Amino acid sequence: MSRVMRLAVAGVGNNISALLQGLYFYHELLKQHVGSAGLPGILHPRIGGMNVDDVEIVAAFDVRAEIIGQDLHAAIFQAPNNYPHLGVTMPQQAAKVALGLDLDQSGAVVRREQVVDELRRSEAETLLYSLPTGMQWAADAYAQCCLEAGVGFVNCTPEIVARNSEVLAAFVTAGLSLIGDDLASHLGTSVVHRSLLRTISERGLTLRSSYQLNIGGNEDFRNLLQNGGSKKKSKKNALAQSAADLDLIEVVPSAGYISHLKDNKIGMINVEAVGWGGTPVSVDLKLKVQDSSNAAGVIIDLIRIAAAAQRCGLSGFHAAASPMLKSPPFGHPDDEVSAAETALASLEPRVAAE
Amino acid sequence: MSRVMRLAVAGVGNNISALLQGLYFYHELLKQHVGSAGLPGILHPRIGGMNVDDVEIVAAFDVRAEIIGQDLHAAIFQAPNNYPHLGVTMPQQAAKVALGLDLDQSGAVVRREQVVDELRRSEAETLLYSLPTGMQWAADAYAQCCLEAGVGFVNCTPEIVARNSEVLAAFVTAGLSLIGDDLASHLGTSVVHRSLLRTISERGLTLRSSYQLNIGGNEDFRNLLQNGGSKKKSKKNALAQSAADLDLIEVVPSAGYISHLKDNKIGMINVEAVGWGGTPVSVDLKLKVQDSSNAAGVIIDLIRIAAAAQRCGLSGFHAAASPMLKSPPFGHPDDEVSAAETALASLEPRVAAE
Amino acid sequence: MSRVMRLAVAGVGNNISALLQGLYFYHELLKQHVGSAGLPGILHPRIGGMNVDDVEIVAAFDVRAEIIGQDLHAAIFQAPNNYPHLGVTMPQQAAKVALGLDLDQSGAVVRREQVVDELRRSEAETLLYSLPTGMQWAADAYAQCCLEAGVGFVNCTPEIVARNSEVLAAFVTAGLSLIGDDLASHLGTSVVHRSLLRTISERGLTLRSSYQLNIGGNEDFRNLLQNGGSKKKSKKNALAQSAADLDLIEVVPSAGYISHLKDNKIGMINVEAVGWGGTPVSVDLKLKVQDSSNAAGVIIDLIRIAAAAQRCGLSGFHAAASPMLKSPPFGHPDDEVSAAETALASLEPRVAAE
Amino acid sequence: MSRVMRLAVAGVGNNISALLQGLYFYHELLKQHVGSAGLPGILHPRIGGMNVDDVEIVAAFDVRAEIIGQDLHAAIFQAPNNYPHLGVTMPQQAAKVALGLDLDQSGAVVRREQVVDELRRSEAETLLYSLPTGMQWAADAYAQCCLEAGVGFVNCTPEIVARNSEVLAAFVTAGLSLIGDDLASHLGTSVVHRSLLRTISERGLTLRSSYQLNIGGNEDFRNLLQNGGSKKKSKKNALAQSAADLDLIEVVPSAGYISHLKDNKIGMINVEAVGWGGTPVSVDLKLKVQDSSNAAGVIIDLIRIAAAAQRCGLSGFHAAASPMLKSPPFGHPDDEVSAAETALASLEPRVAAE
Repeated sequence: MSRVMRLAVAGVGNNISALLQGLYFYHELLKQHVGSAGLPGILHPRIGGMNVDDVEIVAAFDVRAEIIGQDLHAAIFQAPNNYPHLGVTMPQQAAKVALGLDLDQSGAVVRREQVVDELRRSEAETLLYSLPTGMQWAADAYAQCCLEAGVGFVNCTPEIVARNSEVLAAFVTAGLSLIGDDLASHLGTSVVHRSLLRTISERGLTLRSSYQLNIGGNEDFRNLLQNGGSKKKSKKNALAQSAADLDLIEVVPSAGYISHLKDNKIGMINVEAVGWGGTPVSVDLKLKVQDSSNAAGVIIDLIRIAAAAQRCGLSGFHAAASPMLKSPPFGHPDDEVSAAETALASLEPRVAAE
Repeated sequence: MSRVMRLAVAGVGNNISALLQGLYFYHELLKQHVGSAGLPGILHPRIGGMNVDDVEIVAAFDVRAEIIGQDLHAAIFQAPNNYPHLGVTMPQQAAKVALGLDLDQSGAVVRREQVVDELRRSEAETLLYSLPTGMQWAADAYAQCCLEAGVGFVNCTPEIVARNSEVLAAFVTAGLSLIGDDLASHLGTSVVHRSLLRTISERGLTLRSSYQLNIGGNEDFRNLLQNGGSKKKSKKNALAQSAADLDLIEVVPSAGYISHLKDNKIGMINVEAVGWGGTPVSVDLKLKVQDSSNAAGVIIDLIRIAAAAQRCGLSGFHAAASPMLKSPPFGHPDDEVSAAETALASLEPRVAAE
Repeated sequence: MSRVMRLAVAGVGNNISALLQGLYFYHELLKQHVGSAGLPGILHPRIGGMNVDDVEIVAAFDVRAEIIGQDLHAAIFQAPNNYPHLGVTMPQQAAKVALGLDLDQSGAVVRREQVVDELRRSEAETLLYSLPTGMQWAADAYAQCCLEAGVGFVNCTPEIVARNSEVLAAFVTAGLSLIGDDLASHLGTSVVHRSLLRTISERGLTLRSSYQLNIGGNEDFRNLLQNGGSKKKSKKNALAQSAADLDLIEVVPSAGYISHLKDNKIGMINVEAVGWGGTPVSVDLKLKVQDSSNAAGVIIDLIRIAAAAQRCGLSGFHAAASPMLKSPPFGHPDDEVSAAETALASLEPRVAAE
Repeated sequence: MSRVMRLAVAGVGNNISALLQGLYFYHELLKQHVGSAGLPGILHPRIGGMNVDDVEIVAAFDVRAEIIGQDLHAAIFQAPNNYPHLGVTMPQQAAKVALGLDLDQSGAVVRREQVVDELRRSEAETLLYSLPTGMQWAADAYAQCCLEAGVGFVNCTPEIVARNSEVLAAFVTAGLSLIGDDLASHLGTSVVHRSLLRTISERGLTLRSSYQLNIGGNEDFRNLLQNGGSKKKSKKNALAQSAADLDLIEVVPSAGYISHLKDNKIGMINVEAVGWGGTPVSVDLKLKVQDSSNAAGVIIDLIRIAAAAQRCGLSGFHAAASPMLKSPPFGHPDDEVSAAETALASLEPRVAAE
């Protein structure tokens, strides 16, 4: 029997819109007795005994005045959110959006106590941290609140949380999960680009040059136009795992904020190589995805891993999460994927022998 | 020390143009002390002690009157051949084009004796069978000539030779290599398409539909317009190895004979899938390659494997060739790539212990 | 005040599905007081005093047993039709599908009388001929039935009807419209390709080569795979109007029947040219359209032109239709577009002077 | 008989490399008696009696220390210039690169006198202003030097020169040509995008959204990453001439500086529209050009117009140049192209009547 996990969220952006609508989308499919193998877009129908729809959002924090106090199922559609309506029926939610952590004029964090109280009141097992990229202070402060309230933490952003060894040690000591940092997309441009470069190299062709451009119309693309430097570096590093020469590869994380694309992301990849006799080979690829679905498709696994591990008495980082993160605390081991599958299996509840 | 292999060829088309010009292209690079690691487009710089340029074409058969008697280095540029000039200097060759096997009006094969004599005179170790697709009689007859003359056989085409167990047994008995059938391209549309479908499936997305179109301007594309049925089936099967549903995938081996593309091949791939919440993901890919380079980049390995195995006293099919063929006699085992690498290593000459 | 036109149709394929659903789509928009200027996809909101929704289908002919007797609003969704549901509500129609003309075993046309009777009974003003390409006998026979019943004729197909001077003379004598032959798509690959070639030539670049491929998943694409020759020639001619050299351009009308594309059509265009100093310029374009919408967007104008002209006492071919046809009876004059606009204006009803 | 024009250039970047190499490229073709109609990439083989190769560069200014004093045919290949070698043989040039105008620490322009002297000494008829975008002071100061030295002026950049009515009046008074501002590319993304939007609108489809991205590897693309704002606005305005709604169109002049593209520019255009029944139509286009060839293909006409007009006793702006500029002083009249052709014809030398 599955037990619904209780989730708190910090930041009510497109990711949460995708997550919440998706929960009801899959709930309807499961009610219609669709075999879980046939759930579209789902890699792991069951983790730790939980189905895809065994998640309830019990607390939600944000600082945008216009959504504070709104029921979550309405708040997720407020601008600048622009993830599409999936056409599912959503009931009233357990959670109304509460005022979250902020900085006062002196730069001090305010409302810690209220956030801790709300986390306790909601009996959340895990908090999903999904605020806009670039607010290290907020990631730090929410992690502290979780430690105080006895709640696990999943970090979607590139801020350093799970990679901070002191913070990780504190979660271990507290018996809480800490999963992060930085989501790897479900099917992102990096994954596809890396796979293409690997194929070319495995076949013995010689890379001459490659580039990757990404455009989109959500807030991420607007932010990245200015602040794409660290993302660019991390993306180039992700590609270099295939032994491709970094000098030959250019990556532009946000080549344009195109508002009418809304939450769609378009990645364009070019690879120029040479084969036999030095004759040229070129590949051009265009990938179009719903950006926040790309996140939610991974979030659904990370939050179930965090809750399941905690329920098993495990704490800190869990190896099952490693392939779904750009920067896990212990890097990407060579046998990561099979290690993660083994780790996932270990989270499944055992049927007691009679 | 490397020993130059002696190669006979049946069919003097674009593949042989690519092969012969490439031999001199790499010869020049190797003379300039380019480390063999730096050879563009080469996966295996050395096989069985042979470098990429350790191949000499000592006999060549064809039936086009206009090239019979021509030196090979001139014959490769006659129409309808349209592989580009690589700009390398080529000396007179050992081989002039000789009149090959043909059918008389009664449908009987003529000139067997002359072909066997020429094979013997040339002291070829291996014959590369590379005539236009669809002439099973010719593949059979050349294989018989090779058995008689004591020459190994490499089959580039989809005709059934290595998969014919009687023929395979005859080559084994004769102590000769028999490598085939049907070249897998160096970097073909199938390889790229399969890799894309695998990536999508590994990430948990659900395939909705996919298609692959191929166009080109060489004789293959003209032939396939009419006779693409078996190729279409074999290409769909190649893709289905990634567990993708055959009903969802369409393949058009020759979607057009576009003469001004000459020996260039363009492959266009589309994949439509769904991710989280049933939201769509689409990938469009365009691959442009020099078609006959794509063949020659694999031929260079197959002929060296054939000769090296024979020199080691091995006979019949050799496992090192398996991943470079579309239809090897024993199918594609799961661990084919690593098995092939081990098999390749076993062909390297040992330094005698003192 | 507008007067609804009465239309008969021969052939109940995707074009009729697109037409009928579209009539209700625009009817709903017009009821919502959307200014006619804002009607999406409509070039001429009013022709001859008729709005886009002033069309009623009063008779329909086909020979597929499974739809005979069905109400038209159900028949349009039967396989192999695969135009999408536009989500509009459609009432019962005036027309049920009646058994149309056919050939008996001796090759003689049967059911002429019944068709003439049904045309008379329905009081249709115009018949839209939209059967599969390649049945010249059917085009001829339906035209004769129309002459007998006093009904105008619009020919969507490449069969020769309006270009047959005897037939044209007969319609003129009978005081009936005859509009054809062969629809130019609303936004087809030819239009876009021609515009691209013209831009390149106007700017002074020199064309080197160009190709155009079309794929789709409706019956047209299946038919054209075998019978694309005449279509290929007519398409190349359409492009050559921009003075481009025919030898440099390749067109493949059906490069693939890809069933899961359904009624979508994808056109792929490549242009290679050279500019200053002989340096290369290349353009690749991909066009994706709903194939039968592309037809219906033009049909809506042609049938209103046919009816309006007849109502004005005009007969035979009308110049307003010229730019919407691939092969009008008098070719494409240079000033065709402005001449057509003038001709269209002349069809508008005058308000009587006091 | 043609008379060679004497040209001075300010700025020795890729444009000048393209121009100079191109002059010899066409000179070789013309020597081989290629009919001028067959010159690749040339719209106007003859302007004012001058062939494409009737241009001599007699003075050149720059401030990069490493090329000062170099012969022009060597200087054009120095980094960061990266226009390709066209493989033509170039003799020593009349011009060595001279130190041009600069600003001293107080912000005052230095070396005016030397520049005026050099212009006089060289007997240049026209100066081509082609420095990096953004130095209004330099455009102003070079224009003043030209007025003093009696030399016409052609402005390739968006700086305001011909649109400054006082400056224009001064050139008129001095009997000198002033042609500007801002080159329209030979075949640029704007031209192609505009043509596509116009086709869609002429056919009656309704635009929903469109974007344009440009990437390249020359200094322009590096500069525009930071300073693309004004370019973005001017490009959007250029598109809006086709009546397309500005809110629906996004333009990114430099979506990425991809160094290995060198002087190649890639433009990517997407258009989403709807047709009959509101069904979608989408077009994706990719344009690849040699960026500086795109400039030189227009420069060759502008400098011949400037010299020819001056030789005819005309002064100021000349209407023949209007379609080749983004911002001509009197805007773009509706009949601009035919007016320009007439104006061009008027510049041809008359044969004296006997």
